[in-house]
Amino acid sequence: MTATDVTSAVHDIARQAKVAARVLATATRGTKDAALKALATALEVATDPIVAANVVDLDRERAAGMSESTLDRLALTPQRIVAIADALREVAALPDPVGEVLRGSTLPNGLRLQQVRVPMGVVGMIYEARPNVTVDAAALGLKSGNAVILRGGSAAAETNRVIVAVLREALAEQGLPADAVQSIDDYGREGAVALMGARGLVDLLIPRGGAGLIQTVVREAKVPVIETGVGNCHVYVDAAANLDWAERIVLNAKVQRPSVCNAAETLLVHEAVAAEFLPRVLNALNAEHVTIHGDATVAAGRPAGTAFEAAVDDDWAKEYHGLELAVKVVSSLDEAINHIRTWTSGHTEAIVTDNLQASERFVAELDSACVMVNASTRFTDGGEFGLGAEIGISTQKLHARGPMGLAELTTSKWIVHGKGQIRG
Amino acid sequence: MTATDVTSAVHDIARQAKVAARVLATATRGTKDAALKALATALEVATDPIVAANVVDLDRERAAGMSESTLDRLALTPQRIVAIADALREVAALPDPVGEVLRGSTLPNGLRLQQVRVPMGVVGMIYEARPNVTVDAAALGLKSGNAVILRGGSAAAETNRVIVAVLREALAEQGLPADAVQSIDDYGREGAVALMGARGLVDLLIPRGGAGLIQTVVREAKVPVIETGVGNCHVYVDAAANLDWAERIVLNAKVQRPSVCNAAETLLVHEAVAAEFLPRVLNALNAEHVTIHGDATVAAGRPAGTAFEAAVDDDWAKEYHGLELAVKVVSSLDEAINHIRTWTSGHTEAIVTDNLQASERFVAELDSACVMVNASTRFTDGGEFGLGAEIGISTQKLHARGPMGLAELTTSKWIVHGKGQIRG
Repeated sequence: MTATDVTSAVHDIARQAKVAARVLATATRGTKDAALKALATALEVATDPIVAANVVDLDRERAAGMSESTLDRLALTPQRIVAIADALREVAALPDPVGEVLRGSTLPNGLRLQQVRVPMGVVGMIYEARPNVTVDAAALGLKSGNAVILRGGSAAAETNRVIVAVLREALAEQGLPADAVQSIDDYGREGAVALMGARGLVDLLIPRGGAGLIQTVVREAKVPVIETGVGNCHVYVDAAANLDWAERIVLNAKVQRPSVCNAAETLLVHEAVAAEFLPRVLNALNAEHVTIHGDATVAAGRPAGTAFEAAVDDDWAKEYHGLELAVKVVSSLDEAINHIRTWTSGHTEAIVTDNLQASERFVAELDSACVMVNASTRFTDGGEFGLGAEIGISTQKLHARGPMGLAELTTSKWIVHGKGQIRG
Repeated sequence: MTATDVTSAVHDIARQAKVAARVLATATRGTKDAALKALATALEVATDPIVAANVVDLDRERAAGMSESTLDRLALTPQRIVAIADALREVAALPDPVGEVLRGSTLPNGLRLQQVRVPMGVVGMIYEARPNVTVDAAALGLKSGNAVILRGGSAAAETNRVIVAVLREALAEQGLPADAVQSIDDYGREGAVALMGARGLVDLLIPRGGAGLIQTVVREAKVPVIETGVGNCHVYVDAAANLDWAERIVLNAKVQRPSVCNAAETLLVHEAVAAEFLPRVLNALNAEHVTIHGDATVAAGRPAGTAFEAAVDDDWAKEYHGLELAVKVVSSLDEAINHIRTWTSGHTEAIVTDNLQASERFVAELDSACVMVNASTRFTDGGEFGLGAEIGISTQKLHARGPMGLAELTTSKWIVHGKGQIRG
């Protein structure tokens, strides 16, 4: 296929999505929830073919040298398929965002004004090797009345092909358009480019994956995009910190699940508590096999046996996604705030302090999606925040910021009722 | 200056704006309102130099052949400056959007969660020959805690230069950073390109002007953009319409101010009322010197003397911005809805009907920012909707849709307070 053919094919898919979206936009919650439950059952029934397709993907990628942790993300077992199906049932249980009245009033001239939540229309997702995202995106799209166009990673191609077929068949059986869920995986990289360029056909495009993928989409897309997930998260241990809390929070933020975007990547310690806190936290991190990238003060104060490298500027910017942590001693709250403002990706920052004024300044002066006081950065999550399922974590300011749930997949419409009013 | 120099200069301006934005973000409402009132007084005091600069712009543009209606938009008189100053005082009287708590709850683990409205940061505006936009953008930016970078049309260059200088001096006198309001007019078209490319430095860019300007910005910008203002608005007169209301609404929507984006550009008439309604409305439009671009049915049914041209496809898409109207007879509500969905720019559509089901279908099945039932399209306006001043009308779905007031110039931040909680 030529690039022109691919563009034309992908744009046809987007037009079909638009037609499907028109049906979904006026589907009742009852219809959508029944379909979500039917999708869950259909996936469980199709466990064998899904697992078989997944084995093909796993074998090919293992042979190609994919890391064990990435293989683990790609892998689907019968148990994981049950978990995915249960997640669909949980989406069915969430309130329907569509139709929510956001604002309303009667104007002085008698016009009745309402701002009502409505679906976006057509939502594109470009993501990597996690096939559960295929199902999440379809489910959240359906519940919020949107048609989705999926571009998964080639590593999960066989798995996604079977899953998408199962979902489409189940939708059709429920009397909903199968084109509510479509894949463009067959069109490769050029298909993704065509999707990014489908102005007027795609209402929102969400990239989900590593920084490289996200930056490519943000740079190349001509359709509206929400930037997600790059998390250079900081923990700042203040002069007035409860050091027990600080140690617990640093360990949790770094070690509990180091590969995710809300894990901590940099620890800042106020010099007033550095002598007491650093040896303690570094020993605890060392026991968890965390390598420290520290400044000169940290180098001087570190306990013997700490896995240590001298920090360079790049360390303050880096998302390690693993058992590494940049550590710096700061002389003041101001220095901590300035360091974070300079290097952060705007995802999540935490302060540990018992000083009210310090906590208030940290919250007010940092410009990140989430700011935690005396809590782990790991809490930045749609599920933890009570938003229900999550389509990603936005690090931009337009439209959505922080964890994105169903509401973030909607827009609004102004509805005005009159009795022949005209403007004077 | 080379293009590289321009980029570097504009990005320096954006960095200065970012520093100013940090101050504005934590300024109290009292401080901001006092500054807005001081800006109003300063503009009134500077009436003579502003008018003198405006005369330079007007003379140059008149000599260059600018139309009288565009010259009128460009012109500032002492009376208009008073109106602009009063608009600043009205912005001071509006509630401060910053700090509004959008959502909040205590999670099962005791974490206290709040989603709070915060400023965007740095907002860029690219606009054409209306110098009042310079003041509006500065005022709405200041009130919502944002620094603004302005790129006005070259036609208003002298006027904008004086206005921006007055605003900056008054800000500094109020103890606020002058760099809260900056212009890049000196850097010409390359300056605008540099602004569009300032990723990480500009949080939001709003183009305001004709379709050409807006499409250029949407296509070229690498920073987040809100698409505004292109309005191919429709009025549909249903079979069950009150024809007195219909005539009044069509006339108002087309004639009251034909140059603006919420004016009607296409009239659809149900065939059941065409024989009665068409002659009536066409005579009334003819009396207002409106040229009709009609389909064959309209051609056959038009009264003698109607200024008429046969409609071509382009007419269904066009924003005339003048005394022209496309008119089509449709055989059903479905045909009306499909016509609008095919051709609309997604701004505002109106139905005139006494039939409840028709009104509900029209509202539910159209995908436009504003849908009116028995009211003129001209009501789509931030002032009319009670939002206070307006920075533009968004025709996109991401972030803001319809009239954009102060709230639309903000984003949100999640603030989480804990007592040492970690994730299990």
